[in-house]
Amino acid sequence: MQVKNLGEFGLIQRISGKFESPDQQGFIGIGDDCSVIPKDDLDSYLVTCDTLVENIHFLISNIEPHDLGYKSLAVNLSDIAAMGGIPEYAFLSMALPVETGTSWIDKFLDGLHDLAIREHVVLAGGDTTKSPRNIAIAITVIGIIKKGNIKRRNGAEPGDKLFLTGSAGDSGGGLRLLTEGHENEADQSATDLIQAHNRPKVHTSEGAWIGTLSAVHAMIDLSDGLASDARHIAESSGVSIRIDLDKVPVSESLLIKAGEYGWDVTELAVSAGEDYSLLFAADASESDRIQSAYFEKFGEHLTCIGEVRVGEGVDFYRKGKKVKKPYHGFDHFKK
Amino acid sequence: MQVKNLGEFGLIQRISGKFESPDQQGFIGIGDDCSVIPKDDLDSYLVTCDTLVENIHFLISNIEPHDLGYKSLAVNLSDIAAMGGIPEYAFLSMALPVETGTSWIDKFLDGLHDLAIREHVVLAGGDTTKSPRNIAIAITVIGIIKKGNIKRRNGAEPGDKLFLTGSAGDSGGGLRLLTEGHENEADQSATDLIQAHNRPKVHTSEGAWIGTLSAVHAMIDLSDGLASDARHIAESSGVSIRIDLDKVPVSESLLIKAGEYGWDVTELAVSAGEDYSLLFAADASESDRIQSAYFEKFGEHLTCIGEVRVGEGVDFYRKGKKVKKPYHGFDHFKK
Repeated sequence: MQVKNLGEFGLIQRISGKFESPDQQGFIGIGDDCSVIPKDDLDSYLVTCDTLVENIHFLISNIEPHDLGYKSLAVNLSDIAAMGGIPEYAFLSMALPVETGTSWIDKFLDGLHDLAIREHVVLAGGDTTKSPRNIAIAITVIGIIKKGNIKRRNGAEPGDKLFLTGSAGDSGGGLRLLTEGHENEADQSATDLIQAHNRPKVHTSEGAWIGTLSAVHAMIDLSDGLASDARHIAESSGVSIRIDLDKVPVSESLLIKAGEYGWDVTELAVSAGEDYSLLFAADASESDRIQSAYFEKFGEHLTCIGEVRVGEGVDFYRKGKKVKKPYHGFDHFKK
Repeated sequence: MQVKNLGEFGLIQRISGKFESPDQQGFIGIGDDCSVIPKDDLDSYLVTCDTLVENIHFLISNIEPHDLGYKSLAVNLSDIAAMGGIPEYAFLSMALPVETGTSWIDKFLDGLHDLAIREHVVLAGGDTTKSPRNIAIAITVIGIIKKGNIKRRNGAEPGDKLFLTGSAGDSGGGLRLLTEGHENEADQSATDLIQAHNRPKVHTSEGAWIGTLSAVHAMIDLSDGLASDARHIAESSGVSIRIDLDKVPVSESLLIKAGEYGWDVTELAVSAGEDYSLLFAADASESDRIQSAYFEKFGEHLTCIGEVRVGEGVDFYRKGKKVKKPYHGFDHFKK
């Protein structure tokens, strides 16, 4: 059997099945956006690792090195945000072909540096090595969190409402433009979508704020796509999730380009991934309070897109009716 | 300019030059075997990252997956040992071609697991992703250390004696056997050398013990080779290092195979790297006490191979005379 038959989540299960996870106070191992390790009486550290590989996660021809440096850090910061924490330290491991230009590297580092400065993240270490062919960027980020603020995937409760920060589908739209020969389109909508893919907004302030809300029971970031990430919450929490497709927020730019090229907006919003919006489940009785406090703090709408129920799996509804079409998220080994 | 012109250490300088290292209590950034981040009043965390890339660091045909899993973790544990710490958590990121066999992955994980169990290290997280061609393994290890025990590269003082745990050159000898068509030799000496390369002994207990000795002023592990690693201590500490080549311990197995194939034993011991012995500088007045305590604790000799002087650079001596031949260690981008 090959890893492509196993798929990403099968592989992760195979790994975690081999290794004991100790029942240690303040420790959380494989299976969430971050691991949690003990720090001191008040705080824990969150640890996350993400790897971007050339020709898998990015094409050199489709992303400026400055954007790639930014994005490589952003995807890791998003995992810290998804647990409710604040990122503190980054560790950068680069595997580079010997022909890699130093000006490319400089721009990559500048992009990473820009985001690190903005988010007060310190580049604390890493590793550099040669690669035979493809660039590979592996980043580890360590964040800090008050013990009581940790938001896992497994706490969603039947009756909770489901919320999404930002919107869904822009990154997928950007990827379609880049890979279907429209990478040079310069109208505002195209620019917005390509930017959403190459230089995603990362919801760090939002995540840290949501972490402080005791009414929030579970959280995840949209990296694999709404269908897949909602399923992670449903499976970890032992619940069913209903998502109302009419409520899933999509941007004006995505609607414009989808109209132009005949894309299925729902497919992009639900299956494409890499949006790095935050998806969370919170006590229904606190919904209004959370939504208005969010708007007051961030000047943007927090959208209720569904609810948590007894049962299992993720169901999609449109105009109150269950949608038959199955939506899937991204699996690194199957696509 | 390309990264091959810059070299590994030029690239690291370029990275660290772009990023501010904050003057934060209890924090040490880029430039040592590990970074140090604050934990609590008593302890700090050590963090290290190392990447192994197929066809650069290993050939699938030359190393059993079980050994590769073991080695991938070992090289990281060695960095924790080199600062005097105790490894606690490992994070495994794997980039795998979709055709990678699950039985290969299982054996890789078993090898990693064996060492993790032996060293009481918990696999706490990581990442899995697709790779277009080569396997890449990036591991981050977090260790713990009492604040007063941290051994850096920069504390060596003129007058210190220089010590080496274990021996040097076996791993380089093993690599020559593997790459020069002798990979199937099964005599004890060949087996020892190939094992030293594919499944290196990692000096974790030794490192943690050396960490407790206040007479030890600087430490590093032999990953790039004695010449290069001694130079790291000399440059960081602003001192000169004298190494007596007659004293550098080499194994019986290395002498036997070197005799058989006409290898330059000194070249292997000084330049080849990947031995993961520990090199440290300690107060000369404590030399005898440290050596006898080491022998009592580990049942092996700790060898004094030279001394620290005022000045700069690393000088090699044989029979009391300075050797003119320059020895270099390993540079990932130049070799």
